Amino acid sequence: MTTLKPQTRDQLKLCTTATLSTQLFKRGLRNVWIDGARLMSSAKGVMVGEAFTLRNIPCREDIDHAGVFDNPDHPQRKAIETAPAGSVFVNDCRRDTRAASGGGILLTRLAVRGVAGMVSDGCVRDATEIAAMDFPVYCAGAAAPLNIARHHAVDINVPVACGGVPVYPGDVIVGDGDGVIVIPAHLAEEVAAATVEQERFERFVMEEIRRGQPVIGTYPPNDATRARYLAWKDTPR
Amino acid sequence: MTTLKPQTRDQLKLCTTATLSTQLFKRGLRNVWIDGARLMSSAKGVMVGEAFTLRNIPCREDIDHAGVFDNPDHPQRKAIETAPAGSVFVNDCRRDTRAASGGGILLTRLAVRGVAGMVSDGCVRDATEIAAMDFPVYCAGAAAPLNIARHHAVDINVPVACGGVPVYPGDVIVGDGDGVIVIPAHLAEEVAAATVEQERFERFVMEEIRRGQPVIGTYPPNDATRARYLAWKDTPR
Amino acid sequence: MTTLKPQTRDQLKLCTTATLSTQLFKRGLRNVWIDGARLMSSAKGVMVGEAFTLRNIPCREDIDHAGVFDNPDHPQRKAIETAPAGSVFVNDCRRDTRAASGGGILLTRLAVRGVAGMVSDGCVRDATEIAAMDFPVYCAGAAAPLNIARHHAVDINVPVACGGVPVYPGDVIVGDGDGVIVIPAHLAEEVAAATVEQERFERFVMEEIRRGQPVIGTYPPNDATRARYLAWKDTPR
Amino acid sequence: MTTLKPQTRDQLKLCTTATLSTQLFKRGLRNVWIDGARLMSSAKGVMVGEAFTLRNIPCREDIDHAGVFDNPDHPQRKAIETAPAGSVFVNDCRRDTRAASGGGILLTRLAVRGVAGMVSDGCVRDATEIAAMDFPVYCAGAAAPLNIARHHAVDINVPVACGGVPVYPGDVIVGDGDGVIVIPAHLAEEVAAATVEQERFERFVMEEIRRGQPVIGTYPPNDATRARYLAWKDTPR
Amino acid sequence: MTTLKPQTRDQLKLCTTATLSTQLFKRGLRNVWIDGARLMSSAKGVMVGEAFTLRNIPCREDIDHAGVFDNPDHPQRKAIETAPAGSVFVNDCRRDTRAASGGGILLTRLAVRGVAGMVSDGCVRDATEIAAMDFPVYCAGAAAPLNIARHHAVDINVPVACGGVPVYPGDVIVGDGDGVIVIPAHLAEEVAAATVEQERFERFVMEEIRRGQPVIGTYPPNDATRARYLAWKDTPR
Amino acid sequence: MTTLKPQTRDQLKLCTTATLSTQLFKRGLRNVWIDGARLMSSAKGVMVGEAFTLRNIPCREDIDHAGVFDNPDHPQRKAIETAPAGSVFVNDCRRDTRAASGGGILLTRLAVRGVAGMVSDGCVRDATEIAAMDFPVYCAGAAAPLNIARHHAVDINVPVACGGVPVYPGDVIVGDGDGVIVIPAHLAEEVAAATVEQERFERFVMEEIRRGQPVIGTYPPNDATRARYLAWKDTPR
Repeated sequence: MTTLKPQTRDQLKLCTTATLSTQLFKRGLRNVWIDGARLMSSAKGVMVGEAFTLRNIPCREDIDHAGVFDNPDHPQRKAIETAPAGSVFVNDCRRDTRAASGGGILLTRLAVRGVAGMVSDGCVRDATEIAAMDFPVYCAGAAAPLNIARHHAVDINVPVACGGVPVYPGDVIVGDGDGVIVIPAHLAEEVAAATVEQERFERFVMEEIRRGQPVIGTYPPNDATRARYLAWKDTPR
Repeated sequence: MTTLKPQTRDQLKLCTTATLSTQLFKRGLRNVWIDGARLMSSAKGVMVGEAFTLRNIPCREDIDHAGVFDNPDHPQRKAIETAPAGSVFVNDCRRDTRAASGGGILLTRLAVRGVAGMVSDGCVRDATEIAAMDFPVYCAGAAAPLNIARHHAVDINVPVACGGVPVYPGDVIVGDGDGVIVIPAHLAEEVAAATVEQERFERFVMEEIRRGQPVIGTYPPNDATRARYLAWKDTPR
Repeated sequence: MTTLKPQTRDQLKLCTTATLSTQLFKRGLRNVWIDGARLMSSAKGVMVGEAFTLRNIPCREDIDHAGVFDNPDHPQRKAIETAPAGSVFVNDCRRDTRAASGGGILLTRLAVRGVAGMVSDGCVRDATEIAAMDFPVYCAGAAAPLNIARHHAVDINVPVACGGVPVYPGDVIVGDGDGVIVIPAHLAEEVAAATVEQERFERFVMEEIRRGQPVIGTYPPNDATRARYLAWKDTPR
Repeated sequence: MTTLKPQTRDQLKLCTTATLSTQLFKRGLRNVWIDGARLMSSAKGVMVGEAFTLRNIPCREDIDHAGVFDNPDHPQRKAIETAPAGSVFVNDCRRDTRAASGGGILLTRLAVRGVAGMVSDGCVRDATEIAAMDFPVYCAGAAAPLNIARHHAVDINVPVACGGVPVYPGDVIVGDGDGVIVIPAHLAEEVAAATVEQERFERFVMEEIRRGQPVIGTYPPNDATRARYLAWKDTPR
Repeated sequence: MTTLKPQTRDQLKLCTTATLSTQLFKRGLRNVWIDGARLMSSAKGVMVGEAFTLRNIPCREDIDHAGVFDNPDHPQRKAIETAPAGSVFVNDCRRDTRAASGGGILLTRLAVRGVAGMVSDGCVRDATEIAAMDFPVYCAGAAAPLNIARHHAVDINVPVACGGVPVYPGDVIVGDGDGVIVIPAHLAEEVAAATVEQERFERFVMEEIRRGQPVIGTYPPNDATRARYLAWKDTPR
Repeated sequence: MTTLKPQTRDQLKLCTTATLSTQLFKRGLRNVWIDGARLMSSAKGVMVGEAFTLRNIPCREDIDHAGVFDNPDHPQRKAIETAPAGSVFVNDCRRDTRAASGGGILLTRLAVRGVAGMVSDGCVRDATEIAAMDFPVYCAGAAAPLNIARHHAVDINVPVACGGVPVYPGDVIVGDGDGVIVIPAHLAEEVAAATVEQERFERFVMEEIRRGQPVIGTYPPNDATRARYLAWKDTPR
């Protein structure tokens, strides 16, 4: 697994998924937005971590019965105990929202183990409990039925689909109030640096817009705006 | 209508739909979750009541005109006045979200009459007003258009579909922060008792997880955990 | 563009989209509700304004590259600078929710320019920022990818589709906690007046329902209720 | 049940659903087209008959087991034996296409009994067999799973929804190569007569278009075209 | 891989997916029907074979470029050359229909290699060519774009989802004019035998229905019908 | 409008949409496939022509009444009479399949006028008649309701969306048994030439595959295959 440098992680915690998406777009990547995953908990700040994945297929009645969790090697339970601290646990539920990909107990275990967050294109149960958690949980909504009512956990840490996009183990997953973006591992460092710089410019733009400047000439900047930005940037604040 | 025993009602008010879904799954029932119904009001606690249903079909322009409500026997209005206190009013809107299945006035009337809550796979209007109500309203979202712009109320208290699952009059409907589950009438007592016991165990599990125990061996429990649970259970708290 | 009279605008600010939909239904108009647009900001009160539209088609990779905004005549940017104060900016995104139709900077510019609000059947980015804005933003949700990742802005102020309904420039757009309704320009005055009167009646009905009156006979009113209403209406309050 | 006059039935057998839809549109009825039902058999000509309906809700595992058909009063089987000769059997499957609403045996029984055809917004099984039948079968496609794998037949000959539109028992159902339209019973006679006349005019228009006339001035006709039509109409052919 | 016995294969070639679905339902299996896969070629008879799977995830622009097929180990191409004769090649395309999971050349290679058929929940290209092939191809429709425009082939012969149901390598896949069913490997022999017997009974039932017997008492049979069946069965034909 | 050279048109008539999609993909264009449009008529060969567009928005009851066609300038009728011979008439119906974008009469007029074909992401009526026409008609299916029951024709020959992709007037539209692809005008000549060459190579590949060559090493070719192809190409046939 590519190692996410601490500095890159720190930079990404200052980014928005909006600006990250623009930087990835500039590098030819459009298919990086996990469609439909929204923040369900009260976690503050930006979620950052390398993807650790769990792949699910639809359940089958004779295989996915209530006794499966007696098996200590059940992939879902094993994945919960295996995801490294600092990683983001990514659940591929094929966008099936009729059952939970996890609930209060499993998510609490992930939090206790130091995992950075959870993302699913399925649902979670115990939504009220999760709403109060200070642990990032992004998914498609709430559904009480237990996972094996629809899902069969089958593989740990393989490339998966989530919300319509590919997620490879080790990709850098970033989540904020808009949702979740996937940064290919090899681009994380470069994109993080470019985004931090763009975020600074956008803060300047917002000040300009608030004081009445038009978007044309400001965003993107013409020469005059660019000059003002350079001055602004150098001003201690 | 099967009578829901007061004791069963009291037990269900201590349950979550998550745990109820597990108990129903163990009894071979997967198709019991009303897909897409979420809490729209500020009601606290768990909604419990026997289903009283209203069936809608699509409207027809020559039948569903603004004058229909002058008829004192209009099925929607009659249903509102007929649903027993303690029941849950279940609206089958065929998952059509382009119109309201009710609004502030009708829902207030249900509340005044002592009905336990309302569930619909359509929408409601007056969402801001409803958001402030202390009456459980579960549905698919907000839409201002009046019901007859899309729906024709046709039958009272017959078996219906709601959010993709069957609801028979008298089935026990339970709603919490995750959404709404349907318990077949004949299973209510048995499932309530089993769920109350499982909820107790899950509270113990959560304590274990919070203090750092792994899910494997704890949930489901191995012998050591089971022993600790028996001790925990007997400890006055 | 038909001029929305100040008095009509003031009346509409006292209306709900629910009651407006009933009045439009009575005039044979069912297809006026922008499906799926919900309030994303903390704006209070009712949004009212004449439609100013922006039409988008799907993007094409060779046309919609990162450099397009260098063009000062780019239709999206130009529309932002052209929408009149008091108008509602309506974005036709063909209900594609995989990219943003705008973000914090553009919406702030609209607010600074005195535009009355923004409606889109696509998404917005910077949802956390927007959630705190005192400017009405109605759309289908949050998505970080920039507009040109999916959309190509092509026309300003032409008739468009939004959320499944037609919007003609100059139509009167009204938004509240339920969502957004479109009033054909030529009906705005008449419908506003009728709605204000109906809202008054509904406030009376709500009082009646709260004190225990049944809906049958009250809503719609029988003769006795009608008489009580006339008295109520004349009572100074 | 309103009786469909033999003459009206004969006239409707000369109509197309296209022209019938235009006549219903002129009378304010838009919501009459069964969305997604297409001809699956080799029946020729136009299907005409009064609606006889079967309502289904989703199945429940403990109710809908393989033994249900041992009950001679099972609603689906009873409906098959009860639908009058000359009627059209309309299945409301809530547009769920994951199971069959019927197969070769049941459809053959309907044909033997003189029923005029079958319409469903679900699927059929035995599609190859049905493709060869000279009996009109309109539905959403083929699916092998037996009905009770998804559906529970619950009511016979009540108002239902089918393909998004209302169907009342006794409504006149007409099917051709485009699909299936629902004519409210009280309009059947009037609409049939008007459609027969419009079909004649459209045959004339087609001749005009084929010989090179433009649509403008021909369809709808200007005075010159109207005159030519009157002459054409009176010409023995 | 469980070996499908020649006798079981021969029996399954006499079965319909309709009757197989009934036998699987009786054994508690509902989730076995590949939703939306229909026959696109002119293959006759019943397709039978053990599943050999290819798993796809969504493409990523920097990984899935036109040069990937230069790699002789590209999973899609390798899978085509590896699927055993007699197996059914099952493509998991996550139901994305915007690109092809294969075309004329690859399908011809499968046919030449003796593979029993191909199933996909995506599309195929070269539909006209495929329509003329005497090789079973079941999928969701036609789409010209090449696979890597949407799909990234990632794994060979792992458990996958296809059309909403699980497919394990070695499961027995059966296709006919209705579509495709998945028989768990361990049930194939038992289900094949039971289905062959049921098919015989259904042929008798069809004769009964054709000669005017009602479904009630015939299907399922009462004692009289059962007696007639036993006689019919013993009659040489 | 860019002029499509006769030679390019002739070359495109020898292409498949499959190979064209590959050539466009190599040039960075993925979003060029009109999703869901399939051939409804018996036209043979490849449809080729420059796009002439008609834009529709949803209808409004007070605007789109039966009298609109009395207006000789009604955009739909005018478009039918204006589309140049050799062009392809492209209807943007926002993928709404509940009404017809045209029927037998209008399509016959297009054919008489020498238009090269019709494409719509909506439906057509008179499907049986159209099935027999020797004029290319590509759309999403059959629906009898007249266009104004859902659509309002609003603009002629502007950039539109069709089946999820952008279509600019003058883009080259090509249709075959797989469906319809859009070639940006400026790429038509280059892509046509490259595709003709690739089609030749694919014919060779198919011969190789038919005689038992594996796909690996053949498609794409290794050096040995490439050499054989060069010889094959030079062989008179």
